[in-house]
Amino acid sequence: MIGIDWGTSSFRAYRMDDRSGAVLERIETGQGILEVPPGGFAEALAAAIGPWLATEPADAPVLLCGMVGSRQGWQEAPYLACPAGPAEIARALTLLPFAGARRCLLVPGLSTRDATGVPDVMRGEETKLIGLLEEVGEGEALACLPGTHSKWARVGGGRILGFATHMTGEVRATLLEHSILGRLAAPGGGGAGEGGDDAFRRGLRRAREGGGLLHHLFGTRALGLMGDLAPEETEPYLSGLLIGHEIAAAVAAGGGAADPVHLAGADILCRRYAIALEEAGLACRRHEADLAARGLARLARGLA
Amino acid sequence: MIGIDWGTSSFRAYRMDDRSGAVLERIETGQGILEVPPGGFAEALAAAIGPWLATEPADAPVLLCGMVGSRQGWQEAPYLACPAGPAEIARALTLLPFAGARRCLLVPGLSTRDATGVPDVMRGEETKLIGLLEEVGEGEALACLPGTHSKWARVGGGRILGFATHMTGEVRATLLEHSILGRLAAPGGGGAGEGGDDAFRRGLRRAREGGGLLHHLFGTRALGLMGDLAPEETEPYLSGLLIGHEIAAAVAAGGGAADPVHLAGADILCRRYAIALEEAGLACRRHEADLAARGLARLARGLA
Repeated sequence: MIGIDWGTSSFRAYRMDDRSGAVLERIETGQGILEVPPGGFAEALAAAIGPWLATEPADAPVLLCGMVGSRQGWQEAPYLACPAGPAEIARALTLLPFAGARRCLLVPGLSTRDATGVPDVMRGEETKLIGLLEEVGEGEALACLPGTHSKWARVGGGRILGFATHMTGEVRATLLEHSILGRLAAPGGGGAGEGGDDAFRRGLRRAREGGGLLHHLFGTRALGLMGDLAPEETEPYLSGLLIGHEIAAAVAAGGGAADPVHLAGADILCRRYAIALEEAGLACRRHEADLAARGLARLARGLA
Repeated sequence: MIGIDWGTSSFRAYRMDDRSGAVLERIETGQGILEVPPGGFAEALAAAIGPWLATEPADAPVLLCGMVGSRQGWQEAPYLACPAGPAEIARALTLLPFAGARRCLLVPGLSTRDATGVPDVMRGEETKLIGLLEEVGEGEALACLPGTHSKWARVGGGRILGFATHMTGEVRATLLEHSILGRLAAPGGGGAGEGGDDAFRRGLRRAREGGGLLHHLFGTRALGLMGDLAPEETEPYLSGLLIGHEIAAAVAAGGGAADPVHLAGADILCRRYAIALEEAGLACRRHEADLAARGLARLARGLA
C-alpha cells in the first residue's frame, strides 16, 4: 500500500507493507498543497510516486491524509464527527479520480463539539492519532500533538472521543514576527532552539501565577525593559508562557485522564512539552514522530 | 502653561490655564516620536508650538509626557516606582534643554512589581491616571485605560498604587493582520467597528468558559469553518474573547476594589469595555478621553 501525508507545506509519501505497517520506502518534499496549482493534484501525485505505482498491484490502496482534503486541496472531504475510530473513518473515505490507482482514497478530518456546542476541527492529526491508538491501548488517555495548532485528544476504546486545539505555535510565531515582543528578541531567536531552558522554565512558572495570559505576555516586554530578561531569553520565556497556559487549560479540560500524557511530534517541540508536563507534575510518554505512516497503514488494513 | 502628550504615533499639545486646568487651545498632529529624527525634538517642538511660546511668560512650564521620555524619544526618563502620586512625580521630572522655555520638563513613566517581583511599566498613562484621580477621590478604586496595551491601575489616597498591563489590543491587531484568523475575517473587518455587538457578546461569554484563551482563539476559526460564525463576525467575536479574558484576569487580580471600574479612553473601545464589564456583572463609570491635559495641568500646579 501507499500512504500520503500531504500538508500545507510538506509532502510525505510512504510505501508500506500492508500487514506489518513497516515502511519500505519514503519520499519527503516541500511540495505542500499550496504549491500545487488548482486541478493539478493528480498530476503532482503521479509525478511524485510514479515509480512506486508502476510496481504496486493495480488494486493496492493509496491513502491520503492531511490538508489535501481541505477546501484548498485536491477535493474537500467533509469532517467526520467524533467519537471516531478506524472503522468510522474507513466508512467515510472519499474515492478520488486517479489514473494511477483504482483505490485512491482521501481520509476525512474530524470535528467535535464541546459541552457548550463550540466546534473544533482537525485534518491530518486524526491519522496520527489512529497510529498512536495502537500504542496507547483501550483505556481512556490524553494525547498531545504539539505544533502550530496543538491538538489535545481524549482517546479510549480504540477511538478518538473528542479533542481541543490550542493556537499556541501560531500565536508564538505571530508575536515574535509581528509584535513588540519580537523587537526585544535576539536576532535569529525566533526558532525553538535547544538553549534557554532556564528562561523557558521561568515562563512556565509565570504561567501558573494569576494575572492572565494577556498580562503575562506584556510582562515579557517589561522584564526586558527592566533588564530582568536578556534578549536571547525572550523566545524561550515567551514559549514557556504560552505552553504553560496551554497545558494548564488542556489538562483541566481533559479531566482525570492525564497520567501519562501521550506526546508525539517534532523532537524540538516534544522536548519542551516534556519539560512543561514535568513542571506541571504530570508524567508523559513520548511516541515516535512517524505516526502518520502507522495510522495510514492501520486504516488500509481496515479496507481489506 | 503648556502640556504635551507625545506618543509613538501622535502629538497633542494643550495651552492651558494653570489654575483651572481649562484647555484654551489645542494642537493635534500625527507627528509621533517615530517621525522625529534623532536629536530633532527641540526643533520639532519649537516648530509645533512656536506661536504659543512667543506669548507665554518665559517661566511658564512646558510639561511633556508619553513615549517622548522613552529610549526612542527626546531623552530617556527613568521609570518612577509605584506607589506614586503628583508629589512623587513632580520630584522626578527631568529638565530638558530647550531654548523656547526655561522650564521644559519631562514626566517620568511608572514601574511596579507584582507580589512575585515581575515588573510592569507605563509611559504616558500615569499622566492620564493623575488626571483621573481628581474625579475618583481618595478611596481605593480600579481604573482601566483600554488600548493597544490596556492598563489596569489600582488607585487610592490620591496615588497610583500599582498596575497591570494587558497586551490585548496588540494581540488582536497582530492576529487579525498576520494569523489564520485574519484570513477568515471579512475584508475591512479589522477595525473595532460599531456593529457586531451580538458576536462580541458571544466572544465575551466564550471567554468565561473553560479551555483557555489559546483554545478559544482557535475556536474562532473552527466556528468559521463550520459556518457558525460569519466572516464579518470574526473581528467582534475575537475582540470579545480577548477583552473577556482580560477583564476576568484583571478584576481577579485587582481584589475587591472593582466596583465601579473607572474607564477612560477612545470612545469606540470604551463602548466595548463598558459592554464587557456589564456582562461580567460589574458597574463602570466612564470618564472623558482628555485626561492627559487634566493630568498635565495637575502636575504643573504642583510645581508652583
